[in-house]
Amino acid sequence: MTTHLTITAVPHIPHIQPGDDLAAIILTALAQAEMALQDGDVLALAQKIVSKAEGRLVRLADVTPSARAYEVAEQTAKDPRIVELILQESDEISRLRKGVLIVRHRLGFTSANAGIDRSNVGPLNQDETVLLLPQDPDASAARIRAALLAQCGVAVGVVITDSHGRPFRLGTVGVAIGVAGLPALWDRRGEQDLFGYTLEHTDVGVADEIAAAAGLLMGQASESQPVVLLRGLQFFVPAGKATDLVRPKELDLYR
Amino acid sequence: MTTHLTITAVPHIPHIQPGDDLAAIILTALAQAEMALQDGDVLALAQKIVSKAEGRLVRLADVTPSARAYEVAEQTAKDPRIVELILQESDEISRLRKGVLIVRHRLGFTSANAGIDRSNVGPLNQDETVLLLPQDPDASAARIRAALLAQCGVAVGVVITDSHGRPFRLGTVGVAIGVAGLPALWDRRGEQDLFGYTLEHTDVGVADEIAAAAGLLMGQASESQPVVLLRGLQFFVPAGKATDLVRPKELDLYR
Repeated sequence: MTTHLTITAVPHIPHIQPGDDLAAIILTALAQAEMALQDGDVLALAQKIVSKAEGRLVRLADVTPSARAYEVAEQTAKDPRIVELILQESDEISRLRKGVLIVRHRLGFTSANAGIDRSNVGPLNQDETVLLLPQDPDASAARIRAALLAQCGVAVGVVITDSHGRPFRLGTVGVAIGVAGLPALWDRRGEQDLFGYTLEHTDVGVADEIAAAAGLLMGQASESQPVVLLRGLQFFVPAGKATDLVRPKELDLYR
Repeated sequence: MTTHLTITAVPHIPHIQPGDDLAAIILTALAQAEMALQDGDVLALAQKIVSKAEGRLVRLADVTPSARAYEVAEQTAKDPRIVELILQESDEISRLRKGVLIVRHRLGFTSANAGIDRSNVGPLNQDETVLLLPQDPDASAARIRAALLAQCGVAVGVVITDSHGRPFRLGTVGVAIGVAGLPALWDRRGEQDLFGYTLEHTDVGVADEIAAAAGLLMGQASESQPVVLLRGLQFFVPAGKATDLVRPKELDLYR
């Protein structure tokens, strides 16, 4: 049972460039702040730095929109080149209207613009670039976890976070799109409550709750705290993947 | 900018009874644990203890289902008495099928069963009771905040949390259904990102992120940590209400 949790932004994370070794950069930043990783720690990483390190930048000048992209761009009043990338990154369109293009990403996550955006990508007036999500964020999380273990000898959990809008509720919240070394979905069905009832439907999206907690420190604008350390979490179930959090189509009444 | 956050479950919270003074109970528990409230603290309270203190228990034996409740109970395979309460508590049915009844609560929140459930309500084999949400959780939060201020002289933020399932993603997460003394929705549109772009669509559901973070400690089953103290949050916008987080119908593409 988690009774006390500390959540700390790791200071001194530099701007990340394609090819950067994120594990090494994080360990250097931690050392500079006189912090050290401990067993059971969880690191939450903003998707943007992972995507940048993996070189997921695309120059819009290099994108040739398809006929379908022009059509959807017309309906949504969006740049056809960005729409082309969104369609390439997704399995199907969930909802669209002027200014809105919500898709089911090929990874299964449903969100606006397949997670592609322009903000915090590079200085204005450069060749315009956008940033795609990591190719496989669960694999990215596992790789970073393995690199941290190799470089400092401590096995931590890693959550790659993004900010998603939601049906029914205003405001974005942090969600997990990559998970390694900790559970993503905690299936508590079958456990009993305080009075002996057997609980139903109580699988908990723990990795999403971690991402949301980290979101309180990461911000979205110029705050630049893309790495957040959570200490004190207790889990009693096996590790999982962020794709565990994807609701199968047949269980989704809102498709 | 929030750089370090501690989240601590307040120990020694007794079972709450109708009419209990929650503020007094929380202050006693804090004193017992040698903890004291500070300016800027936020207390997250599980909905169940607020509802219980407000006497929102209903004996199922006292409920007479309407014809409509029998009809919906048939379609969802639920107890018609519980369906009656769900319908009384809601404005409209969002989705229904066998085992599932998702409604728009009269407060605006869309969730399963209008937030009504049987778990952790009372011992088995008693007259069966269920627990409704507080009549007005924003008002409950404001009242508890005022009582804490009156009793200990410290102005804290209060968030009343519930666990909601979600479209697209599996697992419940903590969400805010009552807020006092802190912002619920942080509208960051118009701010600039690191590279000078003006951000769009970046209003952040901060009270929901707080509720999710608290959910990591509250659990849902027999853990019994219904009061969680968050220390270190920094806000630079006015306080709001949980109903700020309700997406207006005309902005919801998933209705």
